[in-house]
This record gives sequence, C-alpha cells and structure tokens, in this order.
Amino acid sequence: MDIDRANHQAVQRMIEARPMLRSVAIARDVIPGLSGRKLLHAGPPIDWERMSGPLRGAVIGAALFEGWADDDQQARELAATGEIAFEPCHHRGAVGPMAGVTSPSMAVYVVENLTHGNRAYSNLNEGYGKVLRYGAYSSEVLEKLRFMNDEMGPLLSKALEALGGIDVKALLAEALHMGDEGHNRNKAGSLLFLKLLAPAITEVAGDSQLATRVLAFLGDNALSVLNPVMAACKAMADAAHGIEGSTLVTAMARNGTEFGIRVSSLGDRWFTAPAQTPVGLYFTGYSAEDANPDIGDSTITETAGIGAFAMAAAPAIVTFISGKPKDALHATLEMYEISASEHPAFTIPALDFRGTPVGIDLRKVVELGITPRVNTGIAHKEAGIGQVGAGLVRPPMEIFEAALLAFAETIGPEGKPE
Amino acid sequence: MDIDRANHQAVQRMIEARPMLRSVAIARDVIPGLSGRKLLHAGPPIDWERMSGPLRGAVIGAALFEGWADDDQQARELAATGEIAFEPCHHRGAVGPMAGVTSPSMAVYVVENLTHGNRAYSNLNEGYGKVLRYGAYSSEVLEKLRFMNDEMGPLLSKALEALGGIDVKALLAEALHMGDEGHNRNKAGSLLFLKLLAPAITEVAGDSQLATRVLAFLGDNALSVLNPVMAACKAMADAAHGIEGSTLVTAMARNGTEFGIRVSSLGDRWFTAPAQTPVGLYFTGYSAEDANPDIGDSTITETAGIGAFAMAAAPAIVTFISGKPKDALHATLEMYEISASEHPAFTIPALDFRGTPVGIDLRKVVELGITPRVNTGIAHKEAGIGQVGAGLVRPPMEIFEAALLAFAETIGPEGKPE
Repeated sequence: MDIDRANHQAVQRMIEARPMLRSVAIARDVIPGLSGRKLLHAGPPIDWERMSGPLRGAVIGAALFEGWADDDQQARELAATGEIAFEPCHHRGAVGPMAGVTSPSMAVYVVENLTHGNRAYSNLNEGYGKVLRYGAYSSEVLEKLRFMNDEMGPLLSKALEALGGIDVKALLAEALHMGDEGHNRNKAGSLLFLKLLAPAITEVAGDSQLATRVLAFLGDNALSVLNPVMAACKAMADAAHGIEGSTLVTAMARNGTEFGIRVSSLGDRWFTAPAQTPVGLYFTGYSAEDANPDIGDSTITETAGIGAFAMAAAPAIVTFISGKPKDALHATLEMYEISASEHPAFTIPALDFRGTPVGIDLRKVVELGITPRVNTGIAHKEAGIGQVGAGLVRPPMEIFEAALLAFAETIGPEGKPE
Repeated sequence: MDIDRANHQAVQRMIEARPMLRSVAIARDVIPGLSGRKLLHAGPPIDWERMSGPLRGAVIGAALFEGWADDDQQARELAATGEIAFEPCHHRGAVGPMAGVTSPSMAVYVVENLTHGNRAYSNLNEGYGKVLRYGAYSSEVLEKLRFMNDEMGPLLSKALEALGGIDVKALLAEALHMGDEGHNRNKAGSLLFLKLLAPAITEVAGDSQLATRVLAFLGDNALSVLNPVMAACKAMADAAHGIEGSTLVTAMARNGTEFGIRVSSLGDRWFTAPAQTPVGLYFTGYSAEDANPDIGDSTITETAGIGAFAMAAAPAIVTFISGKPKDALHATLEMYEISASEHPAFTIPALDFRGTPVGIDLRKVVELGITPRVNTGIAHKEAGIGQVGAGLVRPPMEIFEAALLAFAETIGPEGKPE
C-alpha cells in the first residue's frame, strides 16, 4: 500500500474542496438524526458524568432553551438520568466552538462543499460575555439565543439566498492577507462577512430596526465568521476522510475532558486522551487556576490548514494569546514539518506567499515528536461563568501514537490492507 | 536655535493630534474661500497651461458637474481663459487623491483634530473604473458624482452625526494590524469604516433602497476610507506646521506636473521640481508609456507616518504595486533613517509592534541622500481614461535640498532666526 499516494489523494481532496455557505436552517431540519431530546456537543463522545463544567453548563442552557426543563436543577437531573442523549457534533457533520452544544431547535449555518457534495453545519456565534458556548446559561444568555434563532437566523438565511451563498474559501484566503489566522483571530474575516451580507440584509430585512440590530450584532463580534469558517473547514476535512491507506488526521476535537482525533483511513474511531490546559493570557481577575481543560471543535481549523497553522499570517494575534510575533512565525514553520502539503489557496504574505501547511500526517507527528499547535479560547472550569482567556495548546502525543498503532494493524505483512 | 527641540515639538504635535471624522458637508459651506468659479486641485500651485492630462480631465469634469460648461470644449475654454480660478487643496486645509479636484458644490468629509482644534477636508472616494480623480469625465462619471453628492453624502453625514463621529486615528491603528498601510492598501480600514457606519446608515436612512446602495457602494470600494484617512493625516500634519526652527516636512503633494513639499518653519512656501513617474504594476493593456507623472495629495499619508512608511505592516500590498514582501519590510526600515520619531499609536506587528517612522526631517533626507518613499496609483497621461496601475515613487531630491537651503537662510550667523 502506498501511504504517500493515499495521503496525497486525501490532502488534495481537502485542498480542492470548495465550501460555500448556503443558508441558515433549524438544526433538526437539516442535521440527520438530531431529533427528540438529543444534544450535539464538541469533541469525542462523552457522558454527563465525565463532562466538565462548561460543557455541563451549555447542556443545561440548551435544555432550558428547548423547554425540556424549567430550571437548572431539573436540567441536570434529565441529563444525569439519561433523559437527554448526547452525541458528538462530528458524528453528524457538524462542529461547534467551545462546548459546541447544538440542540434540535437551534439555528445552524449550512455549508456545502461544491466539489464533493458533502455538507457541514455549525451553530451561530453569540459574541462575547456570557455565552452558552462557554457554559453560561442565565436568562440573558437564553434571550440572546432566542434573538439569534428567531430574528437573526431567518434574516441571515434570506440574505444568503439573495447572495447565492458566500464562498468561504475565498473569504478565508483574503482574511489571511489581512492578519487573520482563521481560528482565534477572525477580525478581517468577520468584516468581510459583514461586508458581503450588509447590502443583502438591508435589502431583504423589510424592517430597518432588525437590520440595524443584526448589522451591529455582526459588526461588534470579531468572531462572527468563526462558525461558518469552522463548518467550511469541516466540509474540507470530511472530503479527505475515508481514503484507504491514508494517515491524514481528518478531525481534532475536545470535549473539555478529552482531546480526540480521527484519521482518514480509520473510519469512525476516535483516539482520545485527557485534554491539556491551554497556556495563554487571562482576562483581568482570572488565572490558570480557573481554566478548564481544552474544549471545542474549533480545532477543525488547524485540521484544515489554518488557525495555528496559519499563525505567521497573524502576528498581531500575540497581543491576545501571549508571545512575540516571531513565535507566530515559528508556529507556522514548525507545522510544515508534520503536514502533507501546502495550501495553494491559503497563502501567507510574510512567507513570500507560501501556502499554509495542510493535512496533518500522523506518521510525521509521531516520527518527529511534534504535535499540532492549536490556538484556542479558555473557558472557566465551572458552569455558568464563561471565557477567562485565550492561548495555545497541543493535543497529547499519545493519541497520535495510538492512532498510528491502529493504522499499522490495518496493514498486512505485505504492507497491504488486511 | 535648537532644531532638534523644534522638530521634537512639531512631531509631538503630529503624534498627539486626534483626528475625528465629524460629518460630510458641501465644500463651499465649510472650506473658507472656495466660492465662485474656483477649483481646488492636488499638489502645489499650477495653471491650466502646465496641467497634465488627468488634472485637465478632472477640471473639465468639475466644470461640467458645476454646470459652468455644457461640454468638454467649453470647459477647456473657460479654464484656458482664466474664467476658472485654481488653487491647491493644501491652501485650504483640504487634500484630494490623484487629481484632487474639489469644486464648491462637492460633498467633502470634515475632520476635526480634537487635540489642537484645526480642521481638514477631503472629497468622497468614487471607487474604481472611470472616475474624476483619474481625469475621467464622461456622463457615467458625473452621474456617480451626483449620486455621491445628493444621496450618499447627506446619508453619511446623518450616520456620522448619529455615531458622534469616527475616531480615524483608532481606526488606522487597527487597520495597520490588519495588513493595511493606509495609502494604497486600505482594505481593512475601509471594512472597519463600513462596520462602524452600517448600523447607523440603516438606522437613519429611512429608505432601505438607499441604505442598500450605499452599503454596497462603500463595501465594494477597498479605498472608501482613503479620503477620510487623508483628511485625518492632513489634520495631523497641519498640527505640526508653523513651528519656528523646525525642519519637519508638513506637506508632500503632486499636481501631475510637479512634486512639492512644505516645511514646518517655512510658512506657505512650496519647494517644487518636476514629478517623476512611478514604477509599478500596470493593468492589462497598459504600460509605463501610458503613465502620467506622479499626481495627488495622498502623499499626506507618508507625511503623517503611514503609507509607504508603514509598508512593513502590509506585505500583501506587493501583489498590487510590485516587489517582494521583504521589500515592504525594508521600505519601513529605511524610512526610520529620515524620520524624527516613531509613532506610538501606529504600530507594526511584524516589527515587534515598533511604531511607524513619523515626521520627515529635511536635514536627514539631504544628509543621508534618502528621499521619502511613496505608494501611489498611476493615472493615464491623457484626460478621460483613468487608472492604469499602481506602484512606488520618490520625490526629487532637489526639492529637499532647496528647502534646506531656504531653511539655512532663515538662520542668522548666531544660529538664531534672523
């Protein structure tokens, strides 16, 4: 079996994918299998018992949002007694930042990969402060979710329809020339997103108050494009999944307790180990003691060749995550070591327009002892509080070793799949 | 006389200026002395005889726009027979990109320097294609000007009023962290401008069709913020003008025939020499043979410490003006050699957040033989055609030598002003 050839095929599919943001829809209407009292969450599979604070908080919030429970205590009981089913977003073509909790009634972005036909989904970004994705579930959190679901979502969907969709790959390519890396820094991408949507929003809104509110909501949130970007990365990564003989990593995700990866040729298996705690900068009043272990599906960005892999494009990010601009440069340079290719669409001006490293090769990670770098937000470890900082983290090496071992077992003595 | 101390005072005033975009008004209502059949133009003083093609084209367009002439021929006659008076924008606190032609009825941005109280003005940016500032004057050019004047201008002014103004210095500081240099590359700045204006526009428009059109117009133009930025730079540079004993350059401007500078301690005098032709990249179908000599007041950006002086912040600009990203880095590094200070508000992530070089010191330019670098658009040399490329240029050294000589003459034998 020619692993290099398989990896080449896989990474080419990832590169050639063309994710187009099509619409906003209600999750249960578009995500297969998301019905009844089921919640999707970030990272590999996990049950209520082992969930960390912020994921529990988001589960409680989603149960309240859905009306399954009247209060926090009732929501906890439902979750603890198996009345709520849990499944990773990744099992349903979805991704969500931080807790990633997506309930059947929630609005989600729908991304279609025009090249290969697969779809991916992500919930809407709530902005800053007390938000569900960081485990907050107070009435203001739920009120904002209702505004997003009932007012903003339908308007965005109509605007996207009027635009014929948004080419997220082109948007990302431009944002990387404007100091974004596409994961923790999405300032430029969010403005490009706003620019594309704004005239369509005013055109279809039929209500200038709503248009004003939505334009302000999107404009005030430098992460507004993160969720469509994540869905786009999921669509790209999924296009590379299922290639026989490939050692390419097609998913990296954390549930706040464990970090998990999936590999192109190893089907639906997760390889997991305890998640590490990010190192970074904390908001005033918080410190590393408050930090939850690494959480969220947003590592799909690094999986698809942006985020920390594109950090050389975003030297200003160090004001947010710590370090010096040269560290941002080095981050990208190091990631070339473990990547199968360089992305022709995502280029870095400061590196003479070299393509970002793309397609993490399990073999290289283990051989060189270099784990992928990840930019991330940091959640408070207790439910209901929210974000406390942002920083850098790496997945545990043992999951790559375990995956490589599993891969080796699929190869017969002749070097062919058994 | 302590020249260093005078320059320190001048550059500190430039740095401490805080330009706030206040409103959009009709030029004759706010620019003192702009009345009757008078036109403001870019660069140092010039008469019709010596005007280059694009400036003549813009003069014709403005005469048609004002209704002073019914056709091209009549406009030329008025201009040639002294029926139209010409004066540099700079003489009236104004600046305009390329031809810079500003007529009494045109809408202009009004910028106020909160620190020192002075005001500056610039016309509205027309976007790409056939535009007055590049000397085009067809009916589509005039139609667009009328839309900008009659519909967009009043709406922008109402929106700015609702916002309480826009802090252009803060906007620029952010844009420099997003790959802009503030002169030829204003992609991020224009998006930040749009983001700030969008909700205010929808709120005050009272007409969703107009709001849609204006949001699309601003969003489609990656130079939409250039003119308020230029007015802001003019307000900053003017704050540094008139300091006795200072050798700081407070204006650099080109009229398409000559390049001129003014110096802080040398009053209203211009030092001029023939303008050079930029070296850069040409649009398909054009070459250096089509290029007009350097034109426009947009060099006010370099005068205030951005533009080519901040090029290290904008490596992606080389796709537009030629060169390699390292050339962009070197441009900024070279400009430190001739600058009086580093700008505390305008910082460059790739240089470890070092401030941009600011305050061109005449003495250093002459002593080191290093002229300021300038990023610029390139106009076709004939009236009515428009932009043919973009590139780099430097002012002629002789104007700095002449200015230094004039400065020396102001100093008595004791080293004190005579």
